This record gives sequence, C-alpha cells and structure tokens, in this order.
Amino acid sequence: MTDTDRKLANGKTRIDFQTDPSRYRHWKLAVDGDVATLIMDVDEKGGLYEGYELKLNSYDLGVDIELADAIERLRFEHPQVKVVLLRSAKPRVFCAGANIRMLAGATHAHKVNFCKFTNETRNGIEDASESSGLKTICVINGTAAGGGYELALAADHIMLVDDGSSAVSLPELPLLAVLPGTGGLTRVTDKRKVRRDHADYFCTTEEGVKGKRAVEWRLVDELVPGSKFDDTVKQRAREFAATSPRGGGPKGIALTPLKRERSADAVEYSAVSVTLQRPERLATITIRGPENAPPTTAEEMVALGPEFWPLRVARDLDDAILDIRINEFDIAAIVFKSAGDLGQVLAYDAFLDASKNHWLAREITHYWKRVLKRVDLTSRSLVALVEPGSCFAGTLAELVFASDRSYMLIGQRDGDNKPAAMMALSELNFGAYPMSNGLTRLASRFLANPALVEVARAEVGRALDAETAEDTGLVTFARDDIDWEDEVRVFLEERASFSPDGLTGLEANLRFGGPETMESKIFARLTAWQNWIFQRSNAVGEDGALKRYGTGQRPVFDTKRV
Amino acid sequence: MTDTDRKLANGKTRIDFQTDPSRYRHWKLAVDGDVATLIMDVDEKGGLYEGYELKLNSYDLGVDIELADAIERLRFEHPQVKVVLLRSAKPRVFCAGANIRMLAGATHAHKVNFCKFTNETRNGIEDASESSGLKTICVINGTAAGGGYELALAADHIMLVDDGSSAVSLPELPLLAVLPGTGGLTRVTDKRKVRRDHADYFCTTEEGVKGKRAVEWRLVDELVPGSKFDDTVKQRAREFAATSPRGGGPKGIALTPLKRERSADAVEYSAVSVTLQRPERLATITIRGPENAPPTTAEEMVALGPEFWPLRVARDLDDAILDIRINEFDIAAIVFKSAGDLGQVLAYDAFLDASKNHWLAREITHYWKRVLKRVDLTSRSLVALVEPGSCFAGTLAELVFASDRSYMLIGQRDGDNKPAAMMALSELNFGAYPMSNGLTRLASRFLANPALVEVARAEVGRALDAETAEDTGLVTFARDDIDWEDEVRVFLEERASFSPDGLTGLEANLRFGGPETMESKIFARLTAWQNWIFQRSNAVGEDGALKRYGTGQRPVFDTKRV
Repeated sequence: MTDTDRKLANGKTRIDFQTDPSRYRHWKLAVDGDVATLIMDVDEKGGLYEGYELKLNSYDLGVDIELADAIERLRFEHPQVKVVLLRSAKPRVFCAGANIRMLAGATHAHKVNFCKFTNETRNGIEDASESSGLKTICVINGTAAGGGYELALAADHIMLVDDGSSAVSLPELPLLAVLPGTGGLTRVTDKRKVRRDHADYFCTTEEGVKGKRAVEWRLVDELVPGSKFDDTVKQRAREFAATSPRGGGPKGIALTPLKRERSADAVEYSAVSVTLQRPERLATITIRGPENAPPTTAEEMVALGPEFWPLRVARDLDDAILDIRINEFDIAAIVFKSAGDLGQVLAYDAFLDASKNHWLAREITHYWKRVLKRVDLTSRSLVALVEPGSCFAGTLAELVFASDRSYMLIGQRDGDNKPAAMMALSELNFGAYPMSNGLTRLASRFLANPALVEVARAEVGRALDAETAEDTGLVTFARDDIDWEDEVRVFLEERASFSPDGLTGLEANLRFGGPETMESKIFARLTAWQNWIFQRSNAVGEDGALKRYGTGQRPVFDTKRV
Repeated sequence: MTDTDRKLANGKTRIDFQTDPSRYRHWKLAVDGDVATLIMDVDEKGGLYEGYELKLNSYDLGVDIELADAIERLRFEHPQVKVVLLRSAKPRVFCAGANIRMLAGATHAHKVNFCKFTNETRNGIEDASESSGLKTICVINGTAAGGGYELALAADHIMLVDDGSSAVSLPELPLLAVLPGTGGLTRVTDKRKVRRDHADYFCTTEEGVKGKRAVEWRLVDELVPGSKFDDTVKQRAREFAATSPRGGGPKGIALTPLKRERSADAVEYSAVSVTLQRPERLATITIRGPENAPPTTAEEMVALGPEFWPLRVARDLDDAILDIRINEFDIAAIVFKSAGDLGQVLAYDAFLDASKNHWLAREITHYWKRVLKRVDLTSRSLVALVEPGSCFAGTLAELVFASDRSYMLIGQRDGDNKPAAMMALSELNFGAYPMSNGLTRLASRFLANPALVEVARAEVGRALDAETAEDTGLVTFARDDIDWEDEVRVFLEERASFSPDGLTGLEANLRFGGPETMESKIFARLTAWQNWIFQRSNAVGEDGALKRYGTGQRPVFDTKRV
C-alpha cells in the first residue's frame, strides 16, 4: 500500500494537526472549576482515512490529534484546572486501542509516524503532570485494551471498575503479532514497575487481567465497585486537586488558529517560513526574530497571549515539523535558518527567565521544551545554517544544538550588507530545555568534558562570532564566504544521496548519547523493536497477524526465532 | 537466501563455537611475560561459509569465534598477562571490518546473530579490562574500517600510526546503507564521547578521519610517527601493565576441550544435557548439580581446573546456548531444569564467595556473569521449571530469575520419591551477576519495591518450598501436581504458537526494565535499529547497497524518510 493509494476521508491530501474543541469529532472537553473531564467518544465514521470504522473507541491519528490539542488547551486556556479525568462515553468500553484495520492498511511510514505522534502525546500528558501539576486520572469503566490501556498508563492514577468483567489488557502480541508500542511495554516495566514475569503473563494474555490481580500486579491503582464508582471518582479528583501545586491565574489565554498560508512549495506562518525544494529533497525552516522588544510585565505577556513572540514561534515551528514529518516523506533534510535581531531574541529569553514563576512563562518554556524534543525525534537530517542577519540566540540556538551538523559563516558576504552572523547563549540553554535523555543539549554535546558547559555559560548574553562559536564548540564548522557555498551544497547533496533508512538509524543513535530515561527508552528500545516488527511478514505480510485479524483465518508464521 | 542454501565451508551442518589456539586460522596468540599479543591475520580462504573470501582482515563469525576464545584463554590460561596488544599482520591494514560479501549473502537471522555474538565478544574485551585488569591496546598500523574500528573501540587505548594515510572510519552508512552495529555508534557517543556533530561527520565519511583530527575528535588516543611506532607500543604496554591490578598466580588452568556428545535430538555435556523436541519447538537444558562437595582450598580448585563443577557447568551452558541460538532457529523456547543436591550447589557458591580474592574464583564468577548475560540476550522464550529433585540454588537460581516465566511444583509428585522442589539463595545472587542494565536480576525483578531484595537476602542459605518461593517473589507460579502438567503444557504450546518476532521484541523490552548502560544501549537502541535496517530494501533489497556493493552499480534507494 502506498500513501497515494490511501485517501483521506476529508478529501484533502494533507493531514492537518490544527484543530480546536469546536471541531472535535471524538472528544468532549468539559471544565468544571479545577477539574476537567476529557470524554472519549470516538465517532465511528470519523476516521482520518477511508476504509475503516473507529468502533469501540478505537483510534487513529485523527483521534490523537484532538487529544493532543485538548491537553495543550488545558495547559494554556485553563490554568485553573488541576485534575483531568480521562473517561469514555461508551458503555463497558474505555478504549479498544489503535484501530486494527487502520494499522493493517497503513504504510510502514504512516505506522511509524502514527506511533511517534501518539507517544509524544502520552509523554505530553505526563509532562503536564510533572511540569505543570495537571494530574490525570484515568477512569476505566470497562475494557481498556492495547492502546487503550497504554493511554491509561500515561495517567497519574488508574481506576478500574470492579464488575467481574472489566479488565486491562495488552493483547497486541497474541492477537496481532506486534508490540504494545505506544509506550506500553516501557511504562509497564519502568513506570508501573510490574514484575517482569507478571508483565510477561499480562502481555501474552488476550483477555488481560482484572479484579484484585490487576491491583496486586500494579497494573491499576485501585478497583472500585460499580455502585461507588462515580462517588469515588469525584473523591479522587478532589484529593489529587488538593495535592496539585497548579495555581495559575483564573484566566487562560486562547490558542487562536495559526496564521498559515500554504502554496505549492512553501508555507508562510506568522513567525516561521517553510520552503520546500522537493527536487533537492530539502525543507528550509526560517524563524523570524521578534519585531518588538518583549513586554515589561507578565500582564502584558498575558494580554499578548498567542501573539507573544516566543509562543507564536513555538506553535508555528511545531506545526511545520509535524507537517513535514507526515506529509513530506521525501524530504531528506530540514535546514534551520533564522533572520532577525540577536539582542531582541536574548531580551525575550531574559524576560521568560525573569518571569519563570509566572504560569504562562512556565507553560511557554515547557512548550518549547516539547517542540524541541519533537525536533530531536524527527527522522530527517537536521542542519543549521548560521548566516549573516540570523538570530540564533538562546532558545533559537537550541535548534543549532539539535542539528546533526551546523555551519556558521565567517564575516559578511561579499556584496551583502547583512551583519556578520553571531550566536549567543542565554540562561535558558542551561536547564530549561532538557532532551528526552534528561540532559540539556549542551550537556549532551559536551559529554566528554562537562567543564565546557561552564565555559559556554560564562558567555551568556555575549554575541559570539563564527570562529568563537566554533572554538566554544557551539557549531560544527565555521567557514568563510569563499568555501561556504560549495561545502554546504556538497554536504546537502551528499545527505540526500544516502540511504534514508540508514540515516534514520544513524541519527537516532548519535543524537542521544549518554543516559537513557523512561521517555528515551520508549523511542529507542521499544520503538526500534516495534519498527523492526512492523517490517516482518509475521505481522504485516499477507498471511501475517495484522492482515488476517478479523478474517477468521489464523495467521501463518515463519517459525524462525531471529 | 535460506540457511540451507548456504554451505558451511567445512562441510558440516552446524556452526561450532569450540576452538583452541592450535586450530586458529585467523589469529596468533603470543604471550611474553605480562604482555600478550593477539595478531589478526585472517586467512582469506578460511571463511565459515562458502562463497566469499576474507580479504584485508575482514571477518565473519568464524574469525570472531577464535577472538572470543583467545580472550577467554587469556583470562583463564594466562593470569599473569596484564596487557594484550591487538595487532594486524597485514601491511597497512588493521582490519576492514565484517566481510561485506558474507553480510550480503547472509540470512537475516544469521546477520542478527552474527552481530549479537560479535557484540558479546567486544563487551567481553571490556569486561576483561574492567573486571580482571586485562588491558587492551589496539595498535592500528593502517586502515581500521567499520567493524575494524569497532574492534578498536573495545580497547582501553587506541594508537594510530601517523603516516599521512592511515585512518579510522565507520563507512557503513555511506557504503552499505547499514549502521556500524557492533557497538560502534554507541561507543563513539558513550565511551569515546565524541561530540555528536563530529560523530555525524565521521560516520558519513567513507574515508574516515586521520591524523591530528582523529585525536582532537577523540577517535583515537594517540598518533605515533611510523619511525617510533614499535618503541612507543612497547612503552605503552609497559605503562598499562604497571597500572593493571592483575596479579594472578603465574600458572593458569587449561581450558581443555568440552566433553560433548551429540545425537539427533540431544547433546550430552559433562554437567549439562540438552534435549530438543523439535516438533514442539522446545529445547530443554538440564543442569546437573555437583557430584561432590567443593574443595576446601583454592589450590584444590586450581588443581581441578576445568573439572571444577561451577566452571564445567558455565562452559557447557555457554556452548549449549550458542549452539541453539545459531543452529536451531526453529526452537521457540528454552526450558531450564536442574537435578541435584541443593545444599551442594550452595556449598559451591559459598566456596566461590569465600575465595573471591583468588584470581580463579573471580574469573569463574565473572565468566558466569557473562554466560548469564548471554542467556538474557537469547531471543527465545526462557522458562524455568522447578521440579522435585532440582537444585536451583544461588548461581543456578539466576536461570530462574533470567527466565520470562517460572513454575515451581508444590510438594512431591504422586508416585515419585524425588524430594519436593526447593530453591535457595546465596550471597552470589546479590551482586556477583549484574545484568547488562547494571542491576542484579533480583534488583531488576523488584524494581517496584527494592525492600523485597533485602527480604530475599534474609533467606540466604535456607531451602524455600514452592509456596514460600512464590510468596518471596522468586517464581511466577507455584502449582500442585494436579494442575502442573496441563498448565505448563498449555503455556509452552501457546508460546510456540505466537509470532516469533513479536516474542523477540516483547522479551527484549520486558527483560530489561530500569536503567540502561552503554552495554544495554548497544543491544537496545543500536541493535534494534540495525535489525530494522537489516530488513529494509535500501540495504538488503536486490538494488540495495549491501547487494550492489562492489558491482560497480550504485544502489537504488526508496527516498522515503520513515
């Protein structure tokens, strides 16, 4: 199945990651004081692609795009909310997991990117808890199977109704010959810390585990009799709200629709431009620096809301990255450029840093953190070109550090009056934006010599020319005007000539030196194995389990253990 | 290509992991006082399979089997050796890496298992340094490409001749569209701590890096002019020897050939029996407990040498596991059983623990550690059946903890006078045998509640019946004689019915909860990505880079970035 064989149900040719509650087809978001309820009520007919029905609260990427949107809106639009209840509107079913017909019909590339996005969404739920005190309670009123239970695993607290039949399960292996790959295996072992032999039993048992054993084995946090269910849910919500440190102002800011103009080879956002050179397999993302100085008070920032430059850039960039990931598979490399005033960018970073006790400033830096993690996990070669007139300072400099390779031009260009390229660091480069491995990008960069992080820190706020940036280890190569064009061109051509898969594997290894965390294990150990399985005929072949599921025919397996 | 299409060059049908220096075709091991030299001189005509020549010190599994053997012999037979020099006998070439024609012609299963073994061998080189003070200096007299440089990366110190042309390189991606998967990427980022953008440049550059840049980028430790090369090598050997804590007695023990009798469906070792039920896809490995009490002095242990029961079992078990891995791909599950006297096993563990300052006792526990890690990494379902008459105590109990699931029979069997199954723990369960994640198997097991490790420790030396073992969390299920047979049979049948690939991925996740180390990252992040790439047509398809290498035709790539 090729991508072009598959038709989006809305008749369009691109998947759009922008939505808002008025357009949700699968979720209802209700806010009542400090408790929000996010109700899953998947519209069977609302599949993203033609050819399957989303029965029993099963989901596809379209359902998850709405979920991700809802979580972001809870953070920005509802700062008073301390607890979110994840519930189902379907009787006796919480969620049946990823839709199997959707998976069976999807291309390998779609499967991989679907899983990546759903993983990011679940990590986002955990980040909301950890970073913003927005606690999630998952209320399981029936079966939570596969991806349904994996969604529950992202919550802080899992409640299961004790009705003699409701169960949690990860039946992917016995039913479909694939893994619970949306973080399920890793959260079972590393978050819930289920004993490995219990986990083995659980993950090989179609019907899952219910009742007391589910609690004893740490699969759920509590079992509640049906008669007391709603009261207990309310009580837990009150308890979690009482422990939440969240205390934003009562009024949030509206995440208004992005300004976005698409043409054949470009997308123009408010603060970001994307140009696509499809023959060269390149996308260039240019970030525009702020037009004005930052506000002087937090109230002004709140009043600016979605127009506040750092938030505008982050939202534009997030959409641009997601769009390229899922709609532009032939793009080999993403080139980051910037244009603007270095000092202004630093001023915004200084404002965010000084406002770090304000809920909105905190949400914006956490949002940037997530966007930058999304960049790290993007399976395209990432290149930063630091050229005259650019403004890679502080937060924007993270894009240089996230890149697989960076080039910085020495001095001005012949016949061009743009000022020579300078870079600068801000305090935000030293803790605000950890990677999934738990380290800052600079700490990951200087694993061999952590003292170099301190050397860099001493330069905070100073404009660094190309040679200084190279000496400080901030860019890969500083090159003068004479060498620049050829060297960059040859590098980008070379990159486009390599095996796309080989590069994906290479970059997935080189970008994440040093420690692993539960989050990074999900994208390394779990996802890489799942991607392997997604290539194996036992899962995806014509006689494989994914294809034969629901046909009444048993799958035929190659019995070799590799 | 199927395995049966490929003929072993020696005319046999099974790959044999047993060898000794008198039979080496590719290496020469010379010992001179406290310095050994291991010279790579690969016999072009000595390939394991027909159809390729091992030019330029390129290697296949057969070459690596000899290397692994040599390292083990240095540990047991030459305890006085403090430094081993890894050198090449070929002019201007250290090692060209894994043989490309071999890889291009190998089945997926062979490629994966080849890489697993070569990774274990390199980890073994590092373990010899860390655990036994046997330091490795890699002496690069020319090009060290791909797997050749990955071998160097396992050393404590890398010396490169400065002759204007000698270089180290990882050209896998640009040449072959695969990864440097024998630990290369992980050791570059996590051991050598090469900056990620430098690593990106290095790993995408066919010709590699030489001269000063190789030192500046931390790819090698020193650059030595050709005129001073041999003197400097000698000097470094003396220096490393001076810092090595190794101080074994002057006389080692001989690793004499294993006693091993093979029949169609069984292998009979000295202390281990393997039976193969191929229709059921089961291998049963039964460990026999010691026939006698342990020696009373270290000298008696040395005199026993390879006959000393713990060493005998470890060597037998290691060979049995390797044999099943590479010669019995259709085996779905390995069932561990044991037979013998629980108290005797404990007595041997107590002896090893009491002798832990003796070089041989230390080498034996470290060897067990490596064998158990090999078990952890074996892509077959691992099952322990703890039955009447068994002796899963201490070291042998690690096999129960390494298993994906374990069953223990309650009481005696009807009509059978074998004593009821008991298990026991020894001090060796609490530190001697860390897994690749750095934790003991019990600590990995009780991640949720580390206090349970201490609860278990309080039971050291005590015989625990089935129900106590279940309560203590040492086995998954205790079952009585009435339920046992059906439950175990159904479980094993079920296991054989699941997708082999799905199980491989599932077990690779569930077995390694908790932290990751450089070693575990090699088998998770790196290997799982490599296995994915080993399935992709860009690498292994008819027009892929592995198949087209050396044909003069450029590979044709699917340009999708997944």
